[in-house]
Amino acid sequence: MNSPITQAFNLRGSGRTYFDHNATTPLAAELHPYLTTLLSEWGNPSSIHQHGRGPKTLIREARENFAKLIGCSSLEIIFTSGGSEANNTALKGFFEAQKSVWGHDISKWPKRRLITTRLEHPSITKTVEYLRDRGLEVQFLSVGRDGLMNLDELKELLKTPTALVSVMMANNEIGSIFPIKEITELSHAAGALVHTDGVQALGKLQVNVRDLGVDYASFSGHKFYSLKGAGALYIKKNTPLVSLIHGGGQERGRRAGTENTLALAALGFMAKKFSDSVQDLSSDESLTKKSDQMMRLRDYFEQEIQKRLTGVVINAQNSQRIPNTSSLLIENTDGESLLINLDIEGFSVSTGAACSSGNPEPSPTLLAIGLSRSEAQSSLRVSFGWSSTREQVDAFIESLIKVVQRLRTLRDEYANSKKEEVS
Amino acid sequence: MNSPITQAFNLRGSGRTYFDHNATTPLAAELHPYLTTLLSEWGNPSSIHQHGRGPKTLIREARENFAKLIGCSSLEIIFTSGGSEANNTALKGFFEAQKSVWGHDISKWPKRRLITTRLEHPSITKTVEYLRDRGLEVQFLSVGRDGLMNLDELKELLKTPTALVSVMMANNEIGSIFPIKEITELSHAAGALVHTDGVQALGKLQVNVRDLGVDYASFSGHKFYSLKGAGALYIKKNTPLVSLIHGGGQERGRRAGTENTLALAALGFMAKKFSDSVQDLSSDESLTKKSDQMMRLRDYFEQEIQKRLTGVVINAQNSQRIPNTSSLLIENTDGESLLINLDIEGFSVSTGAACSSGNPEPSPTLLAIGLSRSEAQSSLRVSFGWSSTREQVDAFIESLIKVVQRLRTLRDEYANSKKEEVS
Repeated sequence: MNSPITQAFNLRGSGRTYFDHNATTPLAAELHPYLTTLLSEWGNPSSIHQHGRGPKTLIREARENFAKLIGCSSLEIIFTSGGSEANNTALKGFFEAQKSVWGHDISKWPKRRLITTRLEHPSITKTVEYLRDRGLEVQFLSVGRDGLMNLDELKELLKTPTALVSVMMANNEIGSIFPIKEITELSHAAGALVHTDGVQALGKLQVNVRDLGVDYASFSGHKFYSLKGAGALYIKKNTPLVSLIHGGGQERGRRAGTENTLALAALGFMAKKFSDSVQDLSSDESLTKKSDQMMRLRDYFEQEIQKRLTGVVINAQNSQRIPNTSSLLIENTDGESLLINLDIEGFSVSTGAACSSGNPEPSPTLLAIGLSRSEAQSSLRVSFGWSSTREQVDAFIESLIKVVQRLRTLRDEYANSKKEEVS
Repeated sequence: MNSPITQAFNLRGSGRTYFDHNATTPLAAELHPYLTTLLSEWGNPSSIHQHGRGPKTLIREARENFAKLIGCSSLEIIFTSGGSEANNTALKGFFEAQKSVWGHDISKWPKRRLITTRLEHPSITKTVEYLRDRGLEVQFLSVGRDGLMNLDELKELLKTPTALVSVMMANNEIGSIFPIKEITELSHAAGALVHTDGVQALGKLQVNVRDLGVDYASFSGHKFYSLKGAGALYIKKNTPLVSLIHGGGQERGRRAGTENTLALAALGFMAKKFSDSVQDLSSDESLTKKSDQMMRLRDYFEQEIQKRLTGVVINAQNSQRIPNTSSLLIENTDGESLLINLDIEGFSVSTGAACSSGNPEPSPTLLAIGLSRSEAQSSLRVSFGWSSTREQVDAFIESLIKVVQRLRTLRDEYANSKKEEVS
């Protein structure tokens, strides 16, 4: 089943299978010829002479296409270098704007509370720590082992005057989808603004920031089959923000620095292609088709693995999840060993967020939903993409079973040899 | 004289001449085939599986090559999205690090002074304003019409305990070179740290951060014949810094966000090519040859224009300047009209910093060195590049003379018609 979609992606290394789409996505093949033509548009988009006009037009079109994709005005888009910068810009930019209104002594602010979860991406959790060190009072919404949150808890927390609520659209590790529209309605009713990290939602879910009602939303290009180095922050009209990067007047004075024309045009290209196909439900390129395809593969994979291997729990299996993500707790194995053995077998998967790779600490997300340290360290994340196929999944299932059995046998043999030594 | 160097650059639009290299540089032609191969390295550099290994290696090599170019250890390089982010990271990162030591009440800090100039790039001047609003006491070193500063004034200013001195290596508009080594020696002797914005120096001057002795230095890829979206901050070992972008552990925990592999590898490629050629003085690619070539063109241009046009002053003409930059005050003309008319003639030049383009206010740099508003608004910046040729300069001289004479005639006719109306 070598579909045009499969062929349309540049899969590095012949025969290797990439099941780590939540870390980053392959570059869409249609982008290759487009990027080559873009290399001649090296002018500075701020220059008013001829060399600047092409780049300026590319960025204007990218902004319009991206705005259309997420359902807002192009004036409400700030382009950034990526999702992490967008998240930092939203939270710190809101905080600094509050200072302009209420002064530098945060203890005197009428609203000092920030509500978030422990499942956010590090670019949120570390920024929240930074803001807590500077005087904000931070409250975490609890999320259960099923990946769900309790809106009554939010209502309770909002009784204390709250400045900002930041909750991601969908989690990068277990894939659970959070009820952003409901969170926004409750927060706005209580006088709080809302930010959402939409990085993992793009390309997997319909995203309409106007429907969701949020005040800020962050996105990333390289999780959307586009280039690294481009991201976007949606900021609702008239919402306060102080720039994270000060300088030239780019992005209507809200984000300084010469624009990354190449990566932004690539993001705009994908946004246009994707929003066009969203309209055409019969197209193989439509979000519905893509989501269905990923979900069928994911569900098939989970069923087969649970049928053929003992001691496998799928985190948040029965909750609303993005269609491509499977977080497995494979008892009596070590996630890092699984990853390395599967890598040798030709499969790229991960134990959790890519930016925490090599970190020996268990995933904060998995601990936050109630897994023990040892359970969290026995977890594996498999994330499918637009180009994933049933053949790849079948081959992966065989390899995963083989690797798990080998690791479990080794573990048993090691335990037995230890027992013999003792006896 | 269609040299290999000329052919080596992708000049947009046949017949057009680009003399605005301080705004951005064309992409080196050698980068085109390299970038095409890089598109297959779309993996996340933080991933530990096979798809992450290629990108990780590319970034490691880029870091080593860039460190070698500017004379430091690769551990002292933080890659950023560009020069503006590097400047913001240095100044705000230093400021936040001081908070960690001395507390949030800045009025109680033992050193609250920041010394800079009014000639810095907006990513410094706007950041300095931001820090002044937050309690730092800012002093500006004066710079004369000759583009020179007075080190005695710095000595005097340093008598008040000073936290940081930030002065650019070379100015982007008039091209004057500042004595960073001497500034650093005086500042260190007085207990202040030093940041320098090296964006305009790269590719035009030998830059060795160890020789200069600075604590922080900022650089940009797209002013160095490379891609937009990549920059670097040199930070001397053991120098304090709080991240501007919090999140994942990239850049050894100092700058979060998935790395822009493509743009960073391109920057590393140019750094290697350039530092190799620096060693080989006989090469046409050596810095000395490139500088000499640009300076010869620039000096020839200035002599011819002053010989053939009346009322032309070259700003900072007799001071040490980077070899490619010419800032002209052309009396009885309007800079914006000159730019637009030259654009129609096929020449891309500017009135000042690109990121201020379209801003009706006169250049703060030109005002700072003592030009009147009207003089500043009669100024034009011409900045040559590695690929500029004598033929291009000759054609430009003819066009500039024609345009200036036409604009001056129009101005005279307009003045006369006004006089007639009155009489």
